[in-house]
Amino acid sequence: MTTPAPSVDERLAALEARLGAAEDRLAIYQVIATYGPTVDTVSPDGVTSIWLEDGVYDSGGYMPMAGAQAIRDMLFAPTHQALIERGCAHIMSMPHVTLSGDTAVALGYSCLFARTDGSWVTERVSSNRWELVRTPAGWRVSQRVNRQLEATEESRALLRVP
Amino acid sequence: MTTPAPSVDERLAALEARLGAAEDRLAIYQVIATYGPTVDTVSPDGVTSIWLEDGVYDSGGYMPMAGAQAIRDMLFAPTHQALIERGCAHIMSMPHVTLSGDTAVALGYSCLFARTDGSWVTERVSSNRWELVRTPAGWRVSQRVNRQLEATEESRALLRVP
Amino acid sequence: MTTPAPSVDERLAALEARLGAAEDRLAIYQVIATYGPTVDTVSPDGVTSIWLEDGVYDSGGYMPMAGAQAIRDMLFAPTHQALIERGCAHIMSMPHVTLSGDTAVALGYSCLFARTDGSWVTERVSSNRWELVRTPAGWRVSQRVNRQLEATEESRALLRVP
Repeated sequence: MTTPAPSVDERLAALEARLGAAEDRLAIYQVIATYGPTVDTVSPDGVTSIWLEDGVYDSGGYMPMAGAQAIRDMLFAPTHQALIERGCAHIMSMPHVTLSGDTAVALGYSCLFARTDGSWVTERVSSNRWELVRTPAGWRVSQRVNRQLEATEESRALLRVP
Repeated sequence: MTTPAPSVDERLAALEARLGAAEDRLAIYQVIATYGPTVDTVSPDGVTSIWLEDGVYDSGGYMPMAGAQAIRDMLFAPTHQALIERGCAHIMSMPHVTLSGDTAVALGYSCLFARTDGSWVTERVSSNRWELVRTPAGWRVSQRVNRQLEATEESRALLRVP
Repeated sequence: MTTPAPSVDERLAALEARLGAAEDRLAIYQVIATYGPTVDTVSPDGVTSIWLEDGVYDSGGYMPMAGAQAIRDMLFAPTHQALIERGCAHIMSMPHVTLSGDTAVALGYSCLFARTDGSWVTERVSSNRWELVRTPAGWRVSQRVNRQLEATEESRALLRVP
């Protein structure tokens, strides 16, 4: 006894679901690949475009930045401006992505390189946990937490695959 | 004379094949993006989940690790534990992927950064050749070979695009 | 009043367009992931395979390399050969990609690591703007411009998200 062949409608529905998941992964890659270019060019609208309006960025050592205005302000704060004046690159790794319907978690690394006296210094290497949500305008970050990987359980915990 | 328009069945079959190839690429990215987070969190089940049960990891300077138990043991060996105690990040680059039916080859780089006296040291930069196979449970690594890029033909050979 | 359900033909056409865009993104990732392995193995056919025959690579500090022969020659020039003799890795980051029909722009970072006295030195960290075009043989680079991120507006401008 053979299984009946799937109908055209069943094949279309399966394709639509599978393609949606592939598009979700690519969209999340794109969100994460937007961070570096927008912070390194001091582009506030670009940086905030990847977060929810009330999204959070908790980078450790400070109060978490809550909401678009706080994230925007970070670009003009002395710490970030000093990096820009030296020359800097915020480079995100290709992340591990777990999709769960309308939310997703992406895990990966960020490296911050900055110039000092004509050489490159690896300023920070951090673990990152990005929580994302699907919105009508596309995937947005609800919360990004990162911590420098300084042999602390807190920094490692962010990288635990769900 | 015009070519007859493809039938619905032909269009569905073409979409299914093309989508399958795109999904394969994304699945292989995900496999490779799993390595860093699982070794840097000392997660033996996570690390071995990306290899075949009898898969091989040949990282040079040692006997190749053959099989899940050997790869698991690596996490608890003094070399890896010393990195964890310093703070470390194993970062894989976005790979070049060549699909061949139920097998694939992915080529890329791995960087190992570790803390020393409050600074980041680039401990290793290596070429990587990942051989993968499609299994009922998804893509798995049959063999990963990497070598530090120390101006040797052996290390460069791993990166030759097929 | 309900919207009529889309026809089979409409669903197929929508899938074909969406899948095409996903494939374009993956193909552009693959183009960019080809650069490092081909230059670090001194593979002239591999490197030139990602550019148009008359494509340009403008890496700053030199005349832009215009055309396949100039890009090929770069591999055998003293600067590149000296890197190969030290041991080197040209690592491209996962890029931000903007598709516009038959052209695309990819923005990202490149890091050049090279060996010196048994240690790794971060030789260059650069911003990259890749302009690509769709050809019958796949996506090809019409122009790549990169600049070391030395706190210059020229280097930052390359990373502005379109």
